[in-house]
Amino acid sequence: MEDVGDLMTFDNPAFMFYVFSSAALVLKMLILTPLTARQRFKNKVFLSPEDTSLLKGSKVDVHPDVERVRRAHRNDLENVVFFLSMAFCYILTNPTKWVAILVLAAFTVARFLHTFFYLTAKTARMYAFAVGYLVLVYMAGTTVMHFS
Amino acid sequence: MEDVGDLMTFDNPAFMFYVFSSAALVLKMLILTPLTARQRFKNKVFLSPEDTSLLKGSKVDVHPDVERVRRAHRNDLENVVFFLSMAFCYILTNPTKWVAILVLAAFTVARFLHTFFYLTAKTARMYAFAVGYLVLVYMAGTTVMHFS
Amino acid sequence: MEDVGDLMTFDNPAFMFYVFSSAALVLKMLILTPLTARQRFKNKVFLSPEDTSLLKGSKVDVHPDVERVRRAHRNDLENVVFFLSMAFCYILTNPTKWVAILVLAAFTVARFLHTFFYLTAKTARMYAFAVGYLVLVYMAGTTVMHFS
Repeated sequence: MEDVGDLMTFDNPAFMFYVFSSAALVLKMLILTPLTARQRFKNKVFLSPEDTSLLKGSKVDVHPDVERVRRAHRNDLENVVFFLSMAFCYILTNPTKWVAILVLAAFTVARFLHTFFYLTAKTARMYAFAVGYLVLVYMAGTTVMHFS
Repeated sequence: MEDVGDLMTFDNPAFMFYVFSSAALVLKMLILTPLTARQRFKNKVFLSPEDTSLLKGSKVDVHPDVERVRRAHRNDLENVVFFLSMAFCYILTNPTKWVAILVLAAFTVARFLHTFFYLTAKTARMYAFAVGYLVLVYMAGTTVMHFS
Repeated sequence: MEDVGDLMTFDNPAFMFYVFSSAALVLKMLILTPLTARQRFKNKVFLSPEDTSLLKGSKVDVHPDVERVRRAHRNDLENVVFFLSMAFCYILTNPTKWVAILVLAAFTVARFLHTFFYLTAKTARMYAFAVGYLVLVYMAGTTVMHFS
């Protein structure tokens, strides 16, 4: 068995790119938090009754503009979270370096595009979603196969 | 203090099983994505207004069959995500190998059963949920205790 | 390039504190699961139709007390999950030990306060949220910068 400890080092460009792209993806996702807050204040709708004391004329309600940002956020959450873990496992299977970097980069670009398309209400977000999804399936599948 | 680097290697069967079961659990969860899409197209309901252009006669709405798959997905998400991290921390506390493998296997089997029971509307899903939940509490508790 | 393998050891107090605080945060979050169940049984509302067979007089419905615990849980989920991954990446960038421990401790305390404030319906939860959020931005930003 290979020593996976040797793979978890910044001398391994695939591991280094993993740490970099993880942080970039999380940073992008964190931007959706103030965007949600902005839509809540703009449309004066909140989730918790106590929050309505913050802004005169606001109420507990659901607004399509708020929900759009939240859906983009939730979809990101559901996908990025598994990238963080699966890319780690995938890299421990010692894939060819340039293939690994390509796969991680494809996911990263796809998720940036997904957020952009979702916030601008383009159905092209589905292609971006599909790329990210296939990368996740590929990484998880490669990892399972590695032990078969 | 033990050198945890020695534990993060495929020579450690517990770590190897951790990587394998993580990938298996994520693969299982990823299956729920096309199942959700299938229910959306079958019942012609979408979340985003722009998606209704994809299928004649569809509208923005909520349908119980779609919501069931989504609940199974969300429950998976909320539990598997913490397995990915807690099992990692737990293994770094250097537990007895066969105990660790048993604990990880119990979680994995429980979550596969949970999905099956949820999609077939059986309340037995609660026992499956409970096993997974107790494994999470055990792993997080063991880790916290390790430093006390 | 530094050997990040040397950082992933319990001889590194920052890494040890990362594993400890991760487990403590997940344990705290797991407490919200029985709290949600308690509110469901108390208010006799469930999400899945099959669950209403468990308690006479219960129905599929939404109740504000249940939703409050669920929102606290979801907000925790959305933030703690990225702490687990970003704190790991951040520590691999080899930050000054005491700064790292301070940053991780600030997040941990903030999230414990957030849950307390949310369940007691205090808007002070927003300050707790803000601290946790800024820690996430700081850790992800530091990691991205590390490779620039």
